[in-house]
Amino acid sequence: MRPPTPGVSFEDVPEPSMVPGTVKVRILENGVCGTDREVSAGRLLTARPPPGKDWMILGHEALGQVEKVGEGTSGLEEGDLVMPINRRGCGQCMNCQMGRPDHCETGGFRENGITELDGFMSETLIEQPRYLVVVPKNLRDIAILAQPLSDLVKSVDEMLHVQGRLHFQCEDYTLNCRRALVTGTGPIGMLVSMLLRTYGMKVYAANRREPKEVEKRIFSEVGVQYYNSSSGYGELYKEAGGMDVIFDTTGKADVIHSLLPLLRNNSFLAFFGFSSEGMMNLTSLDVQRLIFKGVAMVGLANGQKPHFERALWHLASWKTVWPEAVKMLITREVRVQEFDEVKRVLERKEEGEIKVKLIWS
Amino acid sequence: MRPPTPGVSFEDVPEPSMVPGTVKVRILENGVCGTDREVSAGRLLTARPPPGKDWMILGHEALGQVEKVGEGTSGLEEGDLVMPINRRGCGQCMNCQMGRPDHCETGGFRENGITELDGFMSETLIEQPRYLVVVPKNLRDIAILAQPLSDLVKSVDEMLHVQGRLHFQCEDYTLNCRRALVTGTGPIGMLVSMLLRTYGMKVYAANRREPKEVEKRIFSEVGVQYYNSSSGYGELYKEAGGMDVIFDTTGKADVIHSLLPLLRNNSFLAFFGFSSEGMMNLTSLDVQRLIFKGVAMVGLANGQKPHFERALWHLASWKTVWPEAVKMLITREVRVQEFDEVKRVLERKEEGEIKVKLIWS
Amino acid sequence: MRPPTPGVSFEDVPEPSMVPGTVKVRILENGVCGTDREVSAGRLLTARPPPGKDWMILGHEALGQVEKVGEGTSGLEEGDLVMPINRRGCGQCMNCQMGRPDHCETGGFRENGITELDGFMSETLIEQPRYLVVVPKNLRDIAILAQPLSDLVKSVDEMLHVQGRLHFQCEDYTLNCRRALVTGTGPIGMLVSMLLRTYGMKVYAANRREPKEVEKRIFSEVGVQYYNSSSGYGELYKEAGGMDVIFDTTGKADVIHSLLPLLRNNSFLAFFGFSSEGMMNLTSLDVQRLIFKGVAMVGLANGQKPHFERALWHLASWKTVWPEAVKMLITREVRVQEFDEVKRVLERKEEGEIKVKLIWS
Amino acid sequence: MRPPTPGVSFEDVPEPSMVPGTVKVRILENGVCGTDREVSAGRLLTARPPPGKDWMILGHEALGQVEKVGEGTSGLEEGDLVMPINRRGCGQCMNCQMGRPDHCETGGFRENGITELDGFMSETLIEQPRYLVVVPKNLRDIAILAQPLSDLVKSVDEMLHVQGRLHFQCEDYTLNCRRALVTGTGPIGMLVSMLLRTYGMKVYAANRREPKEVEKRIFSEVGVQYYNSSSGYGELYKEAGGMDVIFDTTGKADVIHSLLPLLRNNSFLAFFGFSSEGMMNLTSLDVQRLIFKGVAMVGLANGQKPHFERALWHLASWKTVWPEAVKMLITREVRVQEFDEVKRVLERKEEGEIKVKLIWS
Repeated sequence: MRPPTPGVSFEDVPEPSMVPGTVKVRILENGVCGTDREVSAGRLLTARPPPGKDWMILGHEALGQVEKVGEGTSGLEEGDLVMPINRRGCGQCMNCQMGRPDHCETGGFRENGITELDGFMSETLIEQPRYLVVVPKNLRDIAILAQPLSDLVKSVDEMLHVQGRLHFQCEDYTLNCRRALVTGTGPIGMLVSMLLRTYGMKVYAANRREPKEVEKRIFSEVGVQYYNSSSGYGELYKEAGGMDVIFDTTGKADVIHSLLPLLRNNSFLAFFGFSSEGMMNLTSLDVQRLIFKGVAMVGLANGQKPHFERALWHLASWKTVWPEAVKMLITREVRVQEFDEVKRVLERKEEGEIKVKLIWS
Repeated sequence: MRPPTPGVSFEDVPEPSMVPGTVKVRILENGVCGTDREVSAGRLLTARPPPGKDWMILGHEALGQVEKVGEGTSGLEEGDLVMPINRRGCGQCMNCQMGRPDHCETGGFRENGITELDGFMSETLIEQPRYLVVVPKNLRDIAILAQPLSDLVKSVDEMLHVQGRLHFQCEDYTLNCRRALVTGTGPIGMLVSMLLRTYGMKVYAANRREPKEVEKRIFSEVGVQYYNSSSGYGELYKEAGGMDVIFDTTGKADVIHSLLPLLRNNSFLAFFGFSSEGMMNLTSLDVQRLIFKGVAMVGLANGQKPHFERALWHLASWKTVWPEAVKMLITREVRVQEFDEVKRVLERKEEGEIKVKLIWS
Repeated sequence: MRPPTPGVSFEDVPEPSMVPGTVKVRILENGVCGTDREVSAGRLLTARPPPGKDWMILGHEALGQVEKVGEGTSGLEEGDLVMPINRRGCGQCMNCQMGRPDHCETGGFRENGITELDGFMSETLIEQPRYLVVVPKNLRDIAILAQPLSDLVKSVDEMLHVQGRLHFQCEDYTLNCRRALVTGTGPIGMLVSMLLRTYGMKVYAANRREPKEVEKRIFSEVGVQYYNSSSGYGELYKEAGGMDVIFDTTGKADVIHSLLPLLRNNSFLAFFGFSSEGMMNLTSLDVQRLIFKGVAMVGLANGQKPHFERALWHLASWKTVWPEAVKMLITREVRVQEFDEVKRVLERKEEGEIKVKLIWS
Repeated sequence: MRPPTPGVSFEDVPEPSMVPGTVKVRILENGVCGTDREVSAGRLLTARPPPGKDWMILGHEALGQVEKVGEGTSGLEEGDLVMPINRRGCGQCMNCQMGRPDHCETGGFRENGITELDGFMSETLIEQPRYLVVVPKNLRDIAILAQPLSDLVKSVDEMLHVQGRLHFQCEDYTLNCRRALVTGTGPIGMLVSMLLRTYGMKVYAANRREPKEVEKRIFSEVGVQYYNSSSGYGELYKEAGGMDVIFDTTGKADVIHSLLPLLRNNSFLAFFGFSSEGMMNLTSLDVQRLIFKGVAMVGLANGQKPHFERALWHLASWKTVWPEAVKMLITREVRVQEFDEVKRVLERKEEGEIKVKLIWS
């Protein structure tokens, strides 16, 4: 792609050379997410190619296999399955130096396939082991989900940290009594619902329509209750009561206003997704209520290497416990060679799609 | 007072009897705060007398002296200076059982002089030692400030806890590089400015006018920079840059919208005060920015017994380090016997007032 | 059993009646652990029957199936697989009230099959849902391991909490650079080695002999390095360097002395197991070194309900990632009806045994 | 001094030149502590002069005044009172990069007046502002205590962090119900006793003799109970019960063995001081008890810049609340010009001494 020009093309580009301390990875699969679509449509303002080039390789979700281990590297062997992590620190602030560019202070971080770094939709990748996560062989089929899940692992960590300002556990020290609402049922909504279930919470997932068949089956297996929010959240409040945690994955600011009555004392509202729709209008009285209720609202995003590792362990556990649901999350596979189809995938989300994989070879 | 009827009267009421496990405290002083004015004006919706009565004693800030130690009590002696804490837990949720009714889940807590419990504006008080904080003799002159300060001690704790989701310390592990803005220069604004200075931060205090003489002198001694925000915060941003922490003590929702550009990456916005003015209008783009910046917004209030104890230690340290400033915070003393004057004090805040004390004796 | 009389017998006892708020569970399997052997040999001083009885049912590891759901219960259905948790709080201290009897302050907690509560080696169990953990169907084969693993989940939590007094993460914010040594290769040593691998650490497991075949195979699959410590730890130090974490599962006090040179700056030494052998002799110089190195030493034990839940998730992930190793942990199954064999199992640990299951039906 | 040669001399040495980014500080006072005596007696093994010199200036406790502000510095003005912090990071490990050389992983840190850096017993000091702490004018008389107190502020932080592995607060969320024992009544023992009082704990201070007059007066004002441990701790246990926290400031390993019975469930044992006497003999049964009780034992030392800042605030509060006690801690002042007397001070601790100050001018 040539941001900000919309559109993508399928081109031969020179392979970067291996320098000491790197390994060569053959890409097996890429995941496609909403951000890829925003980037390839030229709508994401932070999208810009690496300095000195007018083009950039797209993609920040990938699974690959180590093809060649370079000099001066350790910890990886030929044949290892690996995933690249997709953010590089600014090199200046302490959070980046600690391996936490998700909390970069300067804003000077770079991101593969988005900001100043080539992405992963290419045949091979030259990378340092520090930015590669080893993937267990038995997870090859669903490992691609670990990138979006890593963002959520980090986010749920942060939610639990913030809730640690008070006593958030139930009487039996579990979180079984806590209620969470997830708005939106895209891949992010699905994955965070499953993750909150794993943490033992009661989970409600909402969308403004009847649930699709695949959603019904997934939510049934993982024990999430679906709620049709097309007429607001009044019914949910009546049935289930207020919520301790709300993860908004829609990013529609007006949704937030309607969620306020659902927030219990001491609750947590995560802004996760973002879109360009709507307006949040809060009155002073709303703000008073937020104070009286002691609500915390936090904008969350972007997992790092440990969150990738833990995402893989979660996927491994889900494969045992929810074997059907976890497979259903990948709704489609497209071969990279069918480039017209790849283009269509990048242009718009299909009806019923959760996650699409691009397959190399 | 007879809420919701506005107005207060000065009456003889029967003294409650001492039951085992209580001590009798002679009240020496009461502090007056904005909430007392809201309650006595009949504007606070949560104000209601104890069950079975149609009247309630006002006041939630008091300093007293133990007059009689009842049977079955320990830890207090006749003559001890004490302050009563002003919230009682709901008796049901775990936070209340842990002594943390500031995070009561049920909302069923009671509050002296506000909700279902008599306040402290009376000659004597019968209380359990568990709800009394011992005050060092040398702090008698300013101890009354410990009640509002306790709320801020708790709030800054919570801010620091939430910021612990990332690395918030500077290169030398202090907070000296961190910038905080406090909006509003009432007693809460003053006290939180001083507290954040104590934690080592650079502090800016803003109000929509030129600073008063007393503010100038206090801020000069404690090293806080005053900012006149009548034309917005643009100049502050140019001079000082973005803020890591903003404590809003005005409660005006529209102020918040104008503060958003000041919020740095990873920053914290505390909603502390509340008023009935204004409207916060956030667009989806604003919400996007809050996510990208990883901002945390938390409604904060209400200190408990350990926060009172620490507030007293802070006041003790300020008396050594900022001896003039700490005295200037108490702008006026009124004898309770001058009841017409007391009424005027409760009716409205005087020009130049920071804190008013009512004196018994 | 009739503690302190050694020995066990196989008897018909009256089934307790179901009171409201309980469910009836049919026991499917019991795990046998070292503590069961200590108890049945009459060697554990804390072993005593429930008040008013001179006998007690043994066993604190069990997997069962809900047979009947009593009135006034919720959250469980007939047919659910469940595991009982095995400690009940003292009802007095705050830690017990919070569901944390692992940190009971009074020491007045009770423990199934050990102290004042019947154990789980019986056909049926009447229990409140609060003390039952739901087990995913697909984990039935290995779920029995969740009880001992829950102790380790809690212990590793506590280790990570204590290490949070400093910066313990590596440059990439993972724990991949951290080295852990586990002494002892019984079920506890095996499980904690696997758990520390799951947390991303480099793990060394030591015993004073050549590894057995089953150990070799397990450690090879999970990526743990075995070390024969029969001639001390000098060779390990030369090969691998000092350790950031040591989990001692042998309880031999003299082992600890020999471990001190292995402790790096800022390291953590967990006392987990305990036996009756040996003596720890530390000189003042040793203590000086512990101070200079900033070492933390903590005695760890006993997981609660959330730790059981997380243990089950770990087992689920291991079943995907390490399918052979996790099966090999259960080295033998004995039918309860073969009571002579059960007796032998309870009398002594067999050569090559890791975990033995007793099977009902 | 010329380590490892014992003894000190009073010499003219060339003044280091001011480089950009530094300020020149005129030293006003030095504190003398046990480590200075160990260093000047040639007994401390880590004592070595800066590379390329065979001599080193002694002293790691100092109070000075900024005499000249160099180019490229900010935050300090001529006339400011300042204290230098006395440890410099290794420049390699993450803890040092974060400003936490108290948890240096490599051991490569340097320490003024001890290891490879000149100390502060000189007329002037050239230093970067990053290593200087501003001292409030009104604290000039006792500020010198902030260096040893900073170590304790850090240590109590770490204790409270470790105790956060469980619920350590009392029913009213204070620490008023918690009991702490401090062994040893030197400056460290005195300061930590006062600090633990400030945190609200019940404090017992023990030494193996009758208390001296000055100790009686200090402990009486600050509310600490003295205990004569010459016949062991049995009486203390009978009177006061077990302890939640023990700070050993004697470093005598055999003391520790006798303290074990005093440790309550969930308690914390800090190794703070160290000497060359004694031997700690723990049996396996002792280790078993440490596990059952869930005791944490941690070696603690060395405060950093934020701990200095907080030590100053504590001293300021003590000056208000305990004005006599805080003055009595400084038992003697010696003018540097009386060099024979300085030598005697460095040779041995005088009867009745708590803290000695050396005065320049």
